[in-house]
Amino acid sequence: MDTDVVARAFVEHYYSTFDTNRAGLASLYQDNSMLTFEGQKVQGAQNIVTKLTSLPFQQCQHSITTIDSQPSVHPNSIIVFVSGNLQLAGEQHALKFSQMFHLLQTPQNSYYVLNDIFRLNYA
Amino acid sequence: MDTDVVARAFVEHYYSTFDTNRAGLASLYQDNSMLTFEGQKVQGAQNIVTKLTSLPFQQCQHSITTIDSQPSVHPNSIIVFVSGNLQLAGEQHALKFSQMFHLLQTPQNSYYVLNDIFRLNYA
Repeated sequence: MDTDVVARAFVEHYYSTFDTNRAGLASLYQDNSMLTFEGQKVQGAQNIVTKLTSLPFQQCQHSITTIDSQPSVHPNSIIVFVSGNLQLAGEQHALKFSQMFHLLQTPQNSYYVLNDIFRLNYA
Repeated sequence: MDTDVVARAFVEHYYSTFDTNRAGLASLYQDNSMLTFEGQKVQGAQNIVTKLTSLPFQQCQHSITTIDSQPSVHPNSIIVFVSGNLQLAGEQHALKFSQMFHLLQTPQNSYYVLNDIFRLNYA
């Protein structure tokens, strides 16, 4: 398994979905999924999507700077580490962010997010 | 298990060792450990410590801004996500960085680093 190929495909799908149809991210999480967003902990696909769709900005555009990946401990589980910029509609300057995902393979050979940690990197 | 308690203790130990006795980090890695440092992939405790001790700066000081943690998929495995500043000796400005660790518990009830990804966050 080339984790970089999976990681790039996941990252492209994740952020394009975030920027165009945030509620569509629900399919990437399951009941045991965890999100820590700027220090706030949320668990479960429904709660995570509620959190993401209620962030205090509606339109945004992620642009990705780096994608790193490594295999994790389970067969076909992957760590993905992303850095990039988050441009909010109406704001002059983009915000820098870092985010990590721990992806586990499902019985259907797709992946879901077990761990998701997001932080803005304040300059 | 309170992952935040383990994460804080690990982070304090990791960066104080990095700043005072970098070779001492060897005990935190094993043969299957992986480090991706600014996109460069290294595997195995010995190779990782060789990489860390041959970085182009000798003296440095990490200061930590945020520590996030979540349980991972194995019993007693933990994801740790860190942001902070890295001050190099003789440099005027600190560098911002983000780093994630995937910690697995050993049979001796300590932890070792399976996954380690480090990135500078260029302003």
